[in-house]
Amino acid sequence: QGTRDLPPARAALRARLLAAVVRCFQRHGAAPMDTPALELRETLLGKYGAEGRLLYELQDQGGERLALRYDLTVPFARYLAMNKITHMKRYHVAKVYRRDNPATSRGRYREFYQCDFDIAGQFDPMIPDAECLKIVHEVLSDLQLGDFLIKVNDRRILSGIFAVCDIPESKFLPTCSTVDKLDKIPWEEVRSEMVGERGLSPEAADRIGEYVLLHGGLDLVEQLLQDHKLSQNKLAKEGLGDLKLLFEYLTLFGIAEKISFDLSLARGLDYYTGVIFEAILLQPENDHVEEPIGIGSVAGGGRYDGLVGMFDPKGRKVPCVGVSIGIERIFSILEQRVEASGQKVRPTETQVLVATPQKDLLAVRLKLISELWDAGIKAEMLYKKNPKLLKQLQYCEDTGIPLAAIVGEQELADGVVKLRDVATREEVRM
Amino acid sequence: QGTRDLPPARAALRARLLAAVVRCFQRHGAAPMDTPALELRETLLGKYGAEGRLLYELQDQGGERLALRYDLTVPFARYLAMNKITHMKRYHVAKVYRRDNPATSRGRYREFYQCDFDIAGQFDPMIPDAECLKIVHEVLSDLQLGDFLIKVNDRRILSGIFAVCDIPESKFLPTCSTVDKLDKIPWEEVRSEMVGERGLSPEAADRIGEYVLLHGGLDLVEQLLQDHKLSQNKLAKEGLGDLKLLFEYLTLFGIAEKISFDLSLARGLDYYTGVIFEAILLQPENDHVEEPIGIGSVAGGGRYDGLVGMFDPKGRKVPCVGVSIGIERIFSILEQRVEASGQKVRPTETQVLVATPQKDLLAVRLKLISELWDAGIKAEMLYKKNPKLLKQLQYCEDTGIPLAAIVGEQELADGVVKLRDVATREEVRM
Repeated sequence: QGTRDLPPARAALRARLLAAVVRCFQRHGAAPMDTPALELRETLLGKYGAEGRLLYELQDQGGERLALRYDLTVPFARYLAMNKITHMKRYHVAKVYRRDNPATSRGRYREFYQCDFDIAGQFDPMIPDAECLKIVHEVLSDLQLGDFLIKVNDRRILSGIFAVCDIPESKFLPTCSTVDKLDKIPWEEVRSEMVGERGLSPEAADRIGEYVLLHGGLDLVEQLLQDHKLSQNKLAKEGLGDLKLLFEYLTLFGIAEKISFDLSLARGLDYYTGVIFEAILLQPENDHVEEPIGIGSVAGGGRYDGLVGMFDPKGRKVPCVGVSIGIERIFSILEQRVEASGQKVRPTETQVLVATPQKDLLAVRLKLISELWDAGIKAEMLYKKNPKLLKQLQYCEDTGIPLAAIVGEQELADGVVKLRDVATREEVRM
Repeated sequence: QGTRDLPPARAALRARLLAAVVRCFQRHGAAPMDTPALELRETLLGKYGAEGRLLYELQDQGGERLALRYDLTVPFARYLAMNKITHMKRYHVAKVYRRDNPATSRGRYREFYQCDFDIAGQFDPMIPDAECLKIVHEVLSDLQLGDFLIKVNDRRILSGIFAVCDIPESKFLPTCSTVDKLDKIPWEEVRSEMVGERGLSPEAADRIGEYVLLHGGLDLVEQLLQDHKLSQNKLAKEGLGDLKLLFEYLTLFGIAEKISFDLSLARGLDYYTGVIFEAILLQPENDHVEEPIGIGSVAGGGRYDGLVGMFDPKGRKVPCVGVSIGIERIFSILEQRVEASGQKVRPTETQVLVATPQKDLLAVRLKLISELWDAGIKAEMLYKKNPKLLKQLQYCEDTGIPLAAIVGEQELADGVVKLRDVATREEVRM
């Protein structure tokens, strides 16, 4: 359930997509890395909040208690701590596993690829964070997915808001999860969940509402820095100061106009500690609609300064910031687009079919194709002793092979090969 | 246990290795494909003989009973049957899972990559089989692993031998497994396992020994075709006839001299039905040693004409032949070679470091690096506001970045960038 086979045309499209993302990560100087799909259960437990119930656990077959990785971030943090690595810029493209309710039409599966880029290390504020946002901008632009918006916020600002609204600290994370639903359900429902399920007072919920419904740009950062309540809160002030710096760097990168400071962005996972962000694709603008509507998150990430320390016996922290490209959702959008356009994705790259027009020439084909392979040329032949020429040319047309190298009795006698352009039917002897 | 993290330099080396194998598969016109790492337990059970005990099973968490895939062949057969596909040439590079005793120094892990190329479909005999052997030859030659030998045999010949030695059919597969140990233990031990564990008579074991210790080339095929007992057996005769044809095709491919018809080759898995093969690397020849000694299997495969039918409700068969490149063992050999040579594998591909020689020039660096990224150039900068120039150049040397693009106050005033070759220290203004 929630997994799938990927037939050739789709596998080829996904391979191209993954290659484009990897090219971007490599452009930013990240090194590849790999960790096992299996982790000790205890490594993963308690790292994902309520989502931890979605772990796939293995049977205890007389060894360790194992689970399938849920994301690539926790294994990365475990790796850094285990090897006492204090700085690293890496990417990791691999499958992760979640026993979630699949929604396969929207690209939500139980086994899916994640494409992660992370920068670990103690650096000057917001420079690595800005690079993560630049990467999101580059990937989404490269893939020509249409207009998009990158929402940013900071967990410290949310904590500050909860604090000045007199929410007890134990309720910060659950309230965060509730706020995070604002991109899917209206404020009234979020408010009643806060009051009903989270046990906040209606007044506190209303005060939170005054903040989390705000969104804007650098101007909103400045405005909140002047907010008489919020500016008194140490965490909020730090967060706002960092966001101001972040906007400065993003302006230098030339991408600030795609960034929205959105106080309703909270992100589901527990491990974020600072800047958080999420990119959404916008539907094409429509005269009848005032604002473009998001059609779902295609990238997300943030700062998690405490996670590595959870794996270190002495609790030594390694600050980290990273981004995960939501490749499966992008893949399902691109697939729909390819399908709508009627284009066919060619799953193979064969350049030439080795063909013979008469019988008893299998040996000739075998010798010629072997020479082509050894010369690095992508070549195929039909696995028949005496195929008809028409069948061979038909195979080229069906599979998109552009050339046929034809050797018949005449060509053999003349010591040449006839090279035929399958589309134009032009032939040259060589 | 038996899994590992792959740090950047090793991950980069493995990525290059996998890319070389994929290039070979694509050269032969194979299409990519993917299946989930999770399969239904019942799909995998009963396909691997005694090795089936090594399956990783998942907990039943209120859904299906799942296991991690043990190889890529059974999922491929399941895919063909499910989708009623009667012919396909595909490759699949992915991790598989086996709860085996790990021997990590020899590249044997519980989680490891397989690189598979398979041809499914009803074709004229031995043409696809010969291509699989050509692929093994190409991959091992490309990777410059040193001298190698490809052993071939045919399950039908082994069955014929067992039949003419009066072994009951129920003992064919177990006897096969015992014969397969001849590459690791001497004949005397194999013989006593046949008699002791498999319950064969000493005479039958000795008669088997007369056959399975033989190896040679086409001449041996011809000799056995004249063998008065074996030539009476229908299966053996078919197998020998096909091997003769195979040698003919391999001669046309120019690779027959690397092929050894070896009657001790049996292969562990139950699903093979015809030609089987296995490639071994040979130790460099030594004056004191008569014959070069194998240092382990690095590729293997064969024909499995019955497997797809096991997944089809009506038992419809799709003949298949395929090869699996033992990439992990090759990887461990290449790693040892890199280590021995003292070479360093550079895990990143960064072309240029953007550097500044004075303070307060972070904005200049951010603007320039952003232009470089947008132009597709692989660029890095230090995540510090005011790094020392020496530190920046040191970073280039440490990580192998060949160029530094330096912008100081002078260059800013002149509207130029100073491009420095890190190794030669040559500089040009541009």
